[in-house]
Amino acid sequence: MRWIGTLLSTMVRETGVAEIDDLSLKAELLCATSRWCYTRGWVPATSGNFSVRQGARILITASGLDKGVLTPAGLLGLDLEGNVLAGVGKPSAETGLHLVIYKARPKAGAILHVHTVWNTLLSGICEEAGGVELSGFELLKGLSGVSTHEYVERVPVLRNTQDYGELSAKLEESLHENLGAHGVLLSRHGLYTWGESVGEARRHLEALEFLFEVQGRRALGGKA
Amino acid sequence: MRWIGTLLSTMVRETGVAEIDDLSLKAELLCATSRWCYTRGWVPATSGNFSVRQGARILITASGLDKGVLTPAGLLGLDLEGNVLAGVGKPSAETGLHLVIYKARPKAGAILHVHTVWNTLLSGICEEAGGVELSGFELLKGLSGVSTHEYVERVPVLRNTQDYGELSAKLEESLHENLGAHGVLLSRHGLYTWGESVGEARRHLEALEFLFEVQGRRALGGKA
Amino acid sequence: MRWIGTLLSTMVRETGVAEIDDLSLKAELLCATSRWCYTRGWVPATSGNFSVRQGARILITASGLDKGVLTPAGLLGLDLEGNVLAGVGKPSAETGLHLVIYKARPKAGAILHVHTVWNTLLSGICEEAGGVELSGFELLKGLSGVSTHEYVERVPVLRNTQDYGELSAKLEESLHENLGAHGVLLSRHGLYTWGESVGEARRHLEALEFLFEVQGRRALGGKA
Amino acid sequence: MRWIGTLLSTMVRETGVAEIDDLSLKAELLCATSRWCYTRGWVPATSGNFSVRQGARILITASGLDKGVLTPAGLLGLDLEGNVLAGVGKPSAETGLHLVIYKARPKAGAILHVHTVWNTLLSGICEEAGGVELSGFELLKGLSGVSTHEYVERVPVLRNTQDYGELSAKLEESLHENLGAHGVLLSRHGLYTWGESVGEARRHLEALEFLFEVQGRRALGGKA
Repeated sequence: MRWIGTLLSTMVRETGVAEIDDLSLKAELLCATSRWCYTRGWVPATSGNFSVRQGARILITASGLDKGVLTPAGLLGLDLEGNVLAGVGKPSAETGLHLVIYKARPKAGAILHVHTVWNTLLSGICEEAGGVELSGFELLKGLSGVSTHEYVERVPVLRNTQDYGELSAKLEESLHENLGAHGVLLSRHGLYTWGESVGEARRHLEALEFLFEVQGRRALGGKA
Repeated sequence: MRWIGTLLSTMVRETGVAEIDDLSLKAELLCATSRWCYTRGWVPATSGNFSVRQGARILITASGLDKGVLTPAGLLGLDLEGNVLAGVGKPSAETGLHLVIYKARPKAGAILHVHTVWNTLLSGICEEAGGVELSGFELLKGLSGVSTHEYVERVPVLRNTQDYGELSAKLEESLHENLGAHGVLLSRHGLYTWGESVGEARRHLEALEFLFEVQGRRALGGKA
Repeated sequence: MRWIGTLLSTMVRETGVAEIDDLSLKAELLCATSRWCYTRGWVPATSGNFSVRQGARILITASGLDKGVLTPAGLLGLDLEGNVLAGVGKPSAETGLHLVIYKARPKAGAILHVHTVWNTLLSGICEEAGGVELSGFELLKGLSGVSTHEYVERVPVLRNTQDYGELSAKLEESLHENLGAHGVLLSRHGLYTWGESVGEARRHLEALEFLFEVQGRRALGGKA
Repeated sequence: MRWIGTLLSTMVRETGVAEIDDLSLKAELLCATSRWCYTRGWVPATSGNFSVRQGARILITASGLDKGVLTPAGLLGLDLEGNVLAGVGKPSAETGLHLVIYKARPKAGAILHVHTVWNTLLSGICEEAGGVELSGFELLKGLSGVSTHEYVERVPVLRNTQDYGELSAKLEESLHENLGAHGVLLSRHGLYTWGESVGEARRHLEALEFLFEVQGRRALGGKA
């Protein structure tokens, strides 16, 4: 699994450097993250999509690709209105949701969207409530700006729809109503999370999915 | 794990090419998929079987092999009546079921049969109902021809039997009654799924097994 | 993970050869199986032990070794009375149980003993009943001599004790009372299973552990 | 995954040598253990921390690093009052807890702190009771000094707080009240465990986490 070597070495590099301006490096990091998500079963059956932003340009996964073998050749270059500037293929159908997030979260530099067993289960259970509340867990400190377990992270759950216009509008509204949220769940669909860098977005992903599993197991075991 | 490299490179190649006519490449892809299934615990104890079709010929796993180390040398060449044309060993005892599927689904080019913890559990729970209903999940879109989560995929569950003649007849009937089905479960036994290519069959496998796990966890947790 | 390569190549060799007389090859296979069990979490914290028999000699793991890095240097050569003939270290404390099994099952050529989450859970739940009954599952056919899912595999559960003399006597009794059994569970301790070869013992291990997980999940979910 | 090779070879070396005085080798072992924990999902989102002690000096992970790519460059050298003697970065915020453990357990040579799904779940369930009781399991013998399953390992559960002074005082008290304890849980936070060597600490970690999973599954399934 040569790509893990690539992932590690690029992440080591990232660790040592405050800011990375090299878009091709960001693309490599994004693809390594995609393949890592695949090995965890988080983007099965060509599901999920990933993007990075630099200035007025984003790179996003082309539609329908196997996320377990993603390379930068599977990314498209877009402007912030979603016009394709470079690359082969059709942008992911959910590109509009990425654009909404980049607009509502000006500091976001990377967005990860995954379908996991636990986020699928928990978002279904919590759809009526409109959100998942995560509280009292030390791992909340894995979310940027959170410095104590005595914190309530409310991850909004939006009803799923294939009308992406409607979904974009709801997502925008939700992002404005939940300014502290580090992610948004689409019911029985998956999680959107983001960060200033690919590394920060991945940290948010790891923290949220860990907590979804804990909360989901509690819910199924009648403990929540 | 050199085979992963092989898997990846062949899949990358597959991604870039609309149709693959090279039977030996299909055989490599099929074996790579078998070994990948093994690492997930989906074909334990030499269980499971796999095939590809090209024209009037199929390649299918020989009986009793460890699916974690399958190579093309473990495949047999058969005609569509099940006569062995090439290869060493005895065809899988379930070869007849593959032939029924290829007949009932003329576009099918590959068939995957796996025994997983979740398909074993869920097929047992749903045997009386005669099928598993999967609905409301975004991941249903991983099944060819499905473009919305508002879709009901009904995976028939057939009572298991060692009388392969009877089972073949029931499978044929079920495939005709459930023309939209992307897979069939044998109760407490396993899943049969298929696709036009090995890649599509694997996508169906990933999508269905993900949803079986979600549905199975809900059922055991009293949520379904 | 170079050892996987070793495992695969030796297993491929085993597949092609009816009988393997080379004791050093058997030792390599046994160690590869040990390391494979470790990666699955089946022999944590130096637990578990493994042996092979050839004629009047057995090779068995020395006590206290990390099973994730086992090599033939970690095996001891013993006669069937348990006298150490070769090797460095102390034989596993459970050596006597291996000797009982080799005596009661004259065809057994390899014994695997693992501690898994599911065998620990299920043996605890079924201790009062004195055994785990596995029935109706296709994967039972992974057990030698079983040709139908309509079979009841009764895996005896013995109460755990640190008195190995008592445990040996109980095990001997249980093996004679359950002549068809492919394994024996020690309550909240682990599974002993065996086979004519390392490959067959591993097949029994995979089949039984798969079924313990299915049965254990059903029991915890109130379905059994 | 080259590091696994490193891990194995260093562990093999450790196995063969009674005492290892080479601090740089200990640092390599500690980092290998960190990366191994990461692959198991036990230190997600830069959580967790690790240390080794030699004489009056300890090496401990710097704050905020990805534990999946830890190398000795990510460790800081400290004296036993917590003063930084060498290395780049800020010591982990929980350094004080390591110092308390080293003081209360003079033989401890390594400390591992991980956040797992099962220790998070179980510590939350048992917070009111003030501890997790593990009893009747053979794997208790993976804990140093324990020679029978008929043993009660009581792992104290401390209420979590961000006041590290208070937490240090409580931890110190708990270590003195529970002299036989091989680990301490912080509620919905994680496990601290230790050992005379990195290898022993890892053995304790494997044994305790295995038993937490067993106990956690029983608790959620209404069996405990």
